[in-house]
Amino acid sequence: MSDTSYTLPRVWQWESDNGGAFAGTNRPVAGATHEKELPVGKHRFQLYSLATPNGVKAGIMFEELLALGHDAEYDAWLVDIGEGEQFGSGFVDANPNSKIPALFDHGPGEPRRVFESGAILMYLAEAFDALLPRDPGARTETLNWLFWQMGSAAFVGGGFGHFFAYAPEAMKYPIDRYTMETKRLLDVLDRRLADTRYLNGEDYSIADIANWAWYGQIVLGRVYNAAEFLQVHEYPNVVRWAEEIAERPAVRRGCMVNRPFGEPHEQLLERHDASDFEHKTRDRTG
Amino acid sequence: MSDTSYTLPRVWQWESDNGGAFAGTNRPVAGATHEKELPVGKHRFQLYSLATPNGVKAGIMFEELLALGHDAEYDAWLVDIGEGEQFGSGFVDANPNSKIPALFDHGPGEPRRVFESGAILMYLAEAFDALLPRDPGARTETLNWLFWQMGSAAFVGGGFGHFFAYAPEAMKYPIDRYTMETKRLLDVLDRRLADTRYLNGEDYSIADIANWAWYGQIVLGRVYNAAEFLQVHEYPNVVRWAEEIAERPAVRRGCMVNRPFGEPHEQLLERHDASDFEHKTRDRTG
Repeated sequence: MSDTSYTLPRVWQWESDNGGAFAGTNRPVAGATHEKELPVGKHRFQLYSLATPNGVKAGIMFEELLALGHDAEYDAWLVDIGEGEQFGSGFVDANPNSKIPALFDHGPGEPRRVFESGAILMYLAEAFDALLPRDPGARTETLNWLFWQMGSAAFVGGGFGHFFAYAPEAMKYPIDRYTMETKRLLDVLDRRLADTRYLNGEDYSIADIANWAWYGQIVLGRVYNAAEFLQVHEYPNVVRWAEEIAERPAVRRGCMVNRPFGEPHEQLLERHDASDFEHKTRDRTG
Repeated sequence: MSDTSYTLPRVWQWESDNGGAFAGTNRPVAGATHEKELPVGKHRFQLYSLATPNGVKAGIMFEELLALGHDAEYDAWLVDIGEGEQFGSGFVDANPNSKIPALFDHGPGEPRRVFESGAILMYLAEAFDALLPRDPGARTETLNWLFWQMGSAAFVGGGFGHFFAYAPEAMKYPIDRYTMETKRLLDVLDRRLADTRYLNGEDYSIADIANWAWYGQIVLGRVYNAAEFLQVHEYPNVVRWAEEIAERPAVRRGCMVNRPFGEPHEQLLERHDASDFEHKTRDRTG
């Protein structure tokens, strides 16, 4: 792959700019870089997010719960990762991993932090007994596919997406490695969805929300613009499932939440009330 | 990084040997390559695994449950991934993702498959009401850290481990990328464990099992032999926690299950009875 030989050092040394998009925000250490409290709105749930694939999972979940009639009102605050807002002290308290989405539940008792998109889906599903079947078989299959998505996302986002879209130059070996794996993962999903309508069988669940955010949006060309590169028509069952879910009103709304990119009509920088979707503004209140 | 320019094609093409360890077993398609039923032993739980970091999670969990007095007897069958046993039809039925570990519960009702190491931990914790606190605060924190491990493992194993230990040649950019992230993740854990004994606070849980399997074994030099490269002494709280957990008898036993590598006294290729740990054999019955 390379004519320039590189030998592993005994001890790795950090060079502060390794190149590529987000190079300035990536560091080998954790923790806060500056003091900054998080804003808190009027609702029980406070979401701090950005409409990346992991971020939209939370927005979709809240909108689905509200559509089902649950008392899941929430304030959604934009976290500008390009500005390093995930390294503010308040955000680090919410999520010591400095990644969106992060959630605080200001319900009865002390405020409770929930971080990792899969944990947020699980937490809200259990809090409202929704989108996670009670039947042990369907529940197990839901969690199988939820954890499968969580375990595979770093191959897709941190691997394929990074080397396809963000790395400073095209590198054949990593691209081959992660493209092969992404196609394999899409094929796993396609074979499952050849047999069932949704991932756990017949019921739309948090497993579909988690997987749609990544694989659904990839086959729809909404993430990385890689539909041709990946030949997503080879996965017709994923496409069928992705298109059906994309039409859900809660999914349409959830994808708008904390979205500062894309078409203006797709953007809702902050969400504090159901009417915000009708009266959108690009202004931030935080 | 490279003097050889590479331009992304419009459509990715699979070259059957991309190089590196496991190149022969990696494919861009899912599904079975051959017909082969899985062996089934006498116990309720049938585990199909290999003592990689993800694999030992399941072995440790079963041994912890048995040590707590639960009726969690299991048969553990070795899956030789070098021989492609994960692509046999029976294994693919157990886990369509063709990765170890996979579990069948032959308890009341139809046999139920559980796949993904995090889902297996969750399933067994709920089945026996063990190692997952009932207190909502501690339960939430347990799941935060369980999902955090599942979300980050692919950066550590599929990223750092691959480019550090298995890729066909040393590549500076991917090694820098994944080493930086692995050190950041170790630092996240170190800051947490500076404040608490275990990840959820005071109680050993499935979050510790999941994280110990990767981060604990890395700082102990048991995975990738990367302790010096990563300067693991910079994470003293992780080392303290890792050493404490390593001494647990159930962890010692769990790490031996389905282990065909390492020192002979560490290996138990199959586990069918508690006495197998005393009367070890390298013979497989399957």
